[in-house]
Amino acid sequence: MSIERVAIIGLGLLGGSIGLAVREHAPGITTTGYDRDEGVRRVARERGLAAAVCDTAAEAVREADLVILCVPVGAMEAAAAELADLLPDGAIISDVGSSKQSVTEALARALPGKTIIPAHPVAGTEESGPEAGFASLFTNRWCILTPPEGTDEEALAALSDFWAKLGAMVEVMDAEHHDLVLAVTSHIPHLIAFTIVGTASDLEDVTRSEVIKYSAGGFRDFTRIAASDPVMWRDVFLNNKSAVLEMLGRFTEDLTALQRAIRSGDGDALHDLFSRTRAIRREVIKEGQDDGRPDFGREDHG
Amino acid sequence: MSIERVAIIGLGLLGGSIGLAVREHAPGITTTGYDRDEGVRRVARERGLAAAVCDTAAEAVREADLVILCVPVGAMEAAAAELADLLPDGAIISDVGSSKQSVTEALARALPGKTIIPAHPVAGTEESGPEAGFASLFTNRWCILTPPEGTDEEALAALSDFWAKLGAMVEVMDAEHHDLVLAVTSHIPHLIAFTIVGTASDLEDVTRSEVIKYSAGGFRDFTRIAASDPVMWRDVFLNNKSAVLEMLGRFTEDLTALQRAIRSGDGDALHDLFSRTRAIRREVIKEGQDDGRPDFGREDHG
Repeated sequence: MSIERVAIIGLGLLGGSIGLAVREHAPGITTTGYDRDEGVRRVARERGLAAAVCDTAAEAVREADLVILCVPVGAMEAAAAELADLLPDGAIISDVGSSKQSVTEALARALPGKTIIPAHPVAGTEESGPEAGFASLFTNRWCILTPPEGTDEEALAALSDFWAKLGAMVEVMDAEHHDLVLAVTSHIPHLIAFTIVGTASDLEDVTRSEVIKYSAGGFRDFTRIAASDPVMWRDVFLNNKSAVLEMLGRFTEDLTALQRAIRSGDGDALHDLFSRTRAIRREVIKEGQDDGRPDFGREDHG
Repeated sequence: MSIERVAIIGLGLLGGSIGLAVREHAPGITTTGYDRDEGVRRVARERGLAAAVCDTAAEAVREADLVILCVPVGAMEAAAAELADLLPDGAIISDVGSSKQSVTEALARALPGKTIIPAHPVAGTEESGPEAGFASLFTNRWCILTPPEGTDEEALAALSDFWAKLGAMVEVMDAEHHDLVLAVTSHIPHLIAFTIVGTASDLEDVTRSEVIKYSAGGFRDFTRIAASDPVMWRDVFLNNKSAVLEMLGRFTEDLTALQRAIRSGDGDALHDLFSRTRAIRREVIKEGQDDGRPDFGREDHG
């Protein structure tokens, strides 16, 4: 089994990047695309995000052997339900959502008896919408597949092969573990960034203008993440509640311990932690998961 | 009064960048440099971080009309005390420390009667040491001067002019306000980044390898900041304790409110915050304080 016709439902950053990546890296695969927003469809046609951008979901999925839902996780069930009577026999249904347990359940409810293999390419930028996608988004990034028990092995292999063609490295794990891992590596970092940017903009004794001017001290990094799509992230937190709250609890315990160290002037405790965290950065770079140049190679280093 | 001979004490990222920036942007100014570490002095000579790298502080400051202490804030008093009997009459003493109240007091204790104007260029990278500096570090960044009451106006103008020559924009404020502003825009962001990177590396149910692999979900941004110099940052937190604890209190209040919103499924509260924070990013870019390309223009966008 090999995937030849892919329908992309939702043509924002992720959906658009899949279309562009197929065109660049897997030209033998045909893409169709659909977005419920007419303006998005127009931009998608201009940018060629799919070989055919269709005006209905029915048209987009009619001949697909893989359908990828690229909508916020809170919209998955409704988007899937619309397709229930339209899907070709044997088509694989997948997605790109950042939480996997709730999506797995939502898709199973909407599409009983279908071949459902949830997926999460761990890639993105702070941008969103049909202008934001690009063909190399998945290059050297991990794509995690979370096949439910009893998933057809051939279908799983076909989906893995599809993501590998787009440049991704593929990993398989269960949805529950995915949700815990991503709570740490993605959801909590976003929650913290949203929070501190909100805190900084609500102060009375420090003006917003000062916060902007002196943001190069570290704050500006957080503003990038806190510029991410509000609907997507609202849905992530509502749909990965228990893992997020669990990890948030660990984070605040550690933060409280540091707060105590600062209050009591315990320099050794601070130095000990700050020395350990440096090593992680080196590993992230060594594993190809970030640009190793200082400051991410930001262009202002002239 | 105009500055013609600058002595740089401490030749790490900041000190080295000052030397290189002078050479590039203000070639009429002569630099001397000193670092108590012999290995640092050797690299400093190889890289030409100062026109003359001296083996003693005495030699470095002998003819200086501006002495800039570029050492961790906890080392300022000792470094200044060493110079007490060596400083030429009328020389301005300044620094680059990230906290200003404690440094102002430390320098006043060590150098009674001298012309002391503390300064803080809000610029840096996660790197440190004599290899890390570069000439454009201060370009379009703000340098905050915190002159104590009664500071000589001519000396203040000369120091402002010096920083402007290196490409910086200069702002004057009192040390107390500086410490509050920087707690928000720099110190708390660093504290949070150190914490979450520490939390993630201490988990039992998520492996360190998983944290690294899936760091592109957001975590990798935090690892950059958490790779910053441990000694420098230990000293910042110990020396800006009250502002850091105050701002940390605000942050944790806001985080607790978001935690409650997630627990109770209050999507509107989440969406409301996430929509507001996006605007700040646009302002940071508009004010020239960050690279506007997606993902900081990281090179992996091919």
